[in-house]
Amino acid sequence: MADLDEIRPNVHDSLRRVSELLHRHGLVENLVHRQDGPRQELVENLVQKLHLVELQKLLDAQHPADAAYLLESLPLEQRLVVWDLVKADREGEILLEVSDAVRATLIEHMDEKELVAATEQLDTDEIADLAPDLPREVMQDVFKSLSPEEREQLRSAMSYPEGTVGALMDFDMISIRDDVTVEVVLRYLRRLDEMPDHTDQLFVVNYSGQLKGLLPVNRLLVTAPETLVATVMQPELFKHHPQEKAQDVASAFERYDLVSAPVVDDGGRLIGRVTVNAVMDYIREETDNDMLSAGGLLAQEDLFASVWRSVRNRWTWLAINLVTAFIASRVIGLFEGSISKLVALAALMPIVAGISGNSGNQTITMIVRALALGQITAANARKLFAKEIGVSALNGLIWGSVVGLFAFLIYHNWQLGVVLTGAMVLSLMLAAAMAATIPLAMQKRGRDPAQGASVMITAITDSGGFFIFLGLATIFLV
Amino acid sequence: MADLDEIRPNVHDSLRRVSELLHRHGLVENLVHRQDGPRQELVENLVQKLHLVELQKLLDAQHPADAAYLLESLPLEQRLVVWDLVKADREGEILLEVSDAVRATLIEHMDEKELVAATEQLDTDEIADLAPDLPREVMQDVFKSLSPEEREQLRSAMSYPEGTVGALMDFDMISIRDDVTVEVVLRYLRRLDEMPDHTDQLFVVNYSGQLKGLLPVNRLLVTAPETLVATVMQPELFKHHPQEKAQDVASAFERYDLVSAPVVDDGGRLIGRVTVNAVMDYIREETDNDMLSAGGLLAQEDLFASVWRSVRNRWTWLAINLVTAFIASRVIGLFEGSISKLVALAALMPIVAGISGNSGNQTITMIVRALALGQITAANARKLFAKEIGVSALNGLIWGSVVGLFAFLIYHNWQLGVVLTGAMVLSLMLAAAMAATIPLAMQKRGRDPAQGASVMITAITDSGGFFIFLGLATIFLV
Repeated sequence: MADLDEIRPNVHDSLRRVSELLHRHGLVENLVHRQDGPRQELVENLVQKLHLVELQKLLDAQHPADAAYLLESLPLEQRLVVWDLVKADREGEILLEVSDAVRATLIEHMDEKELVAATEQLDTDEIADLAPDLPREVMQDVFKSLSPEEREQLRSAMSYPEGTVGALMDFDMISIRDDVTVEVVLRYLRRLDEMPDHTDQLFVVNYSGQLKGLLPVNRLLVTAPETLVATVMQPELFKHHPQEKAQDVASAFERYDLVSAPVVDDGGRLIGRVTVNAVMDYIREETDNDMLSAGGLLAQEDLFASVWRSVRNRWTWLAINLVTAFIASRVIGLFEGSISKLVALAALMPIVAGISGNSGNQTITMIVRALALGQITAANARKLFAKEIGVSALNGLIWGSVVGLFAFLIYHNWQLGVVLTGAMVLSLMLAAAMAATIPLAMQKRGRDPAQGASVMITAITDSGGFFIFLGLATIFLV
Repeated sequence: MADLDEIRPNVHDSLRRVSELLHRHGLVENLVHRQDGPRQELVENLVQKLHLVELQKLLDAQHPADAAYLLESLPLEQRLVVWDLVKADREGEILLEVSDAVRATLIEHMDEKELVAATEQLDTDEIADLAPDLPREVMQDVFKSLSPEEREQLRSAMSYPEGTVGALMDFDMISIRDDVTVEVVLRYLRRLDEMPDHTDQLFVVNYSGQLKGLLPVNRLLVTAPETLVATVMQPELFKHHPQEKAQDVASAFERYDLVSAPVVDDGGRLIGRVTVNAVMDYIREETDNDMLSAGGLLAQEDLFASVWRSVRNRWTWLAINLVTAFIASRVIGLFEGSISKLVALAALMPIVAGISGNSGNQTITMIVRALALGQITAANARKLFAKEIGVSALNGLIWGSVVGLFAFLIYHNWQLGVVLTGAMVLSLMLAAAMAATIPLAMQKRGRDPAQGASVMITAITDSGGFFIFLGLATIFLV
């Protein structure tokens, strides 16, 4: 294996090399179809096979995560050629690593037997991760192939919905009794071929399986062998329940710098553990989803999804946006009389709506972040609200004056400038008031304040900005 | 210590309790000022002190990360009262945990001696993290108090800019020689009081300090004591250089599920390590910054910053937005003649601009994500471009028809509806073309495609949408 300086470029080099080989493979295929001489065909077939052999070698050398990256970066047709070259015993772990959208394209391409074979190699918690994407018959076959204990684990892992601790849990923990000596533990460990990844601590349980404490592996190393486990173990600091929100575990890992943490049932019995890599994947997925929904996409999209599939993925947000645009359009429609008398209003109104929307989104970003961190209390909410109104009033005055001056310079109408400035101040204050209220209200009603708050604020600042500006203009100018 | 069920609510309970105590403290203070009887004063003073004692107890029981959370959630005045109660030997670690904006308010409040005392308790890599926020004289005093080796570490840690591996690095690693037995290593470890956090592996070096391999602690436990280190160690898989981009290390940790990784200098000598908690903090900070800049904020803002400070933090983006709004306004100005003849255009034009902006942002979200993952190559860029154009043309037809029908129903003018539909198709295709091109162009010129791409696309879709719709209308309708 090479060092990372070579590994990172390697992934990208691999992608380039794979594309190249696939390209040649494609060219040769075309040649074969065109030239019919039997001799020619033989030669071309040989060349083609050589390309595939090199491709396969290259794939076999990749870490599953890197193989997943290659598959995600290839257009569908080439992706399937490459997928066919992946060794059967690596298919399971690679399926785990690819994105949901790409996983669907790969599974579609596999028959039942292949899917069962790929799935059977995985741990039960990993099978549970794949389960929602697998055909029912495949899952039945996989289930039959498991031991009774594994079946119980799989059932348990599948019973927890996404976003809970149970969904992040794995069963690869080492548990020890508290009434043995360190030497016994060390002997027990030495009999294992290797310890599971991310084993930074052993879980200490009593005779009925209840979690009593934790024994960090590092402490094990610096303790005299004759010491009793009960005397060196740490009392259970962080234990979680499988129904708990995954978000809470993630915060605990971030705050307290954990590597693993035990999961217990209601009776306090150890049933699994959560590790830092599961938490990192969870955090990555969460922020990814936030970014996507902020960008107006329903879900992670296969880069090379069909046009139709992509259109459907972007459908919802465009439709919502259309409705809010219709409403804003009708607000303007109310003032068509004023606009036809003073057409400058049409040119200036998008400025008010645009800046208000921008300023409102700044406030909402602040508030949503503070809510996510749990920093907003009944005691400080009013203070925050007052601050945001103050900031927007000041911003309104400053930028409103700039905009007013701009209008005066172009239209030589100082009343128009004054009305524009006034509209900016009011509209920005409206934006701040709504942007500070909406996320809090959504949170109170148990909904995710990050989702949709930005769309709502834009809808309000559009319609509100148009209404305030055109309304003031109708009163004072027309 | 309690279990997490109690700990998490505790943090929020603590915040509530702290606010309550501070509130009473404030009330009592007011009373003291008002009532001048000396007896009354004595009693009130006593009550006040009792509150502070309880507050201090509560603070002492908090994990530094939780104390930081409390401080961040309190308005400035109360924050400083609480900060004065924090024990001097905990100030350093809490300063490390608070956000930059809040850290500044705390440091402003401390004198030189306090700052030196707080800083001296930290590890050298932690001092380097605080250094940019500390006055020069404080850093000089701290520097003087360090051992020569620590000075060297601090100098090295401070020499790497943010965003590099060097800035994430710490020096808490255990390194061993490859020519000793496992037993010798175990004896050496047992002499340590405790091992540094996140020690999942020991770093194996040769006589001149060059990294030769890694010895996972777990393997140490399952190996016979008489085995030579050189025969059980793993060859160096992932080593990093301090000048490397932090992003690359973060990807490696995510892909390969690492807990720690060695950092070597150009001569291959071990100089430090990176741990998963530093990586998690880095990822959190990065996504946080992305969210903030997507929301139009320059930097993380203290929730209770002064109005003026907040205004400055939001300045830049509003100014940029204003410029693009001015341009859009002038584009509309070009067509004032057409609008005054057909005022419906004013009401309909924001629909075209709005939907195009939305659709363009969907495309940009896709592309920026794919770029960040390194999935876009010369080979597939053209395919992607074609797909995005296809999606936007189809979306334009679908939603354009809806919008056209809407316009026909309101204005009973079928030509207007057709022009609107045509404008939607063209405008969405323009949005897709630009949204696919801009991030790629920014990346090529070495700039961050996530930054500013969204502002640029909105500017283009606003002005472009107005221009296309009003232009078509002027040609065909007026």
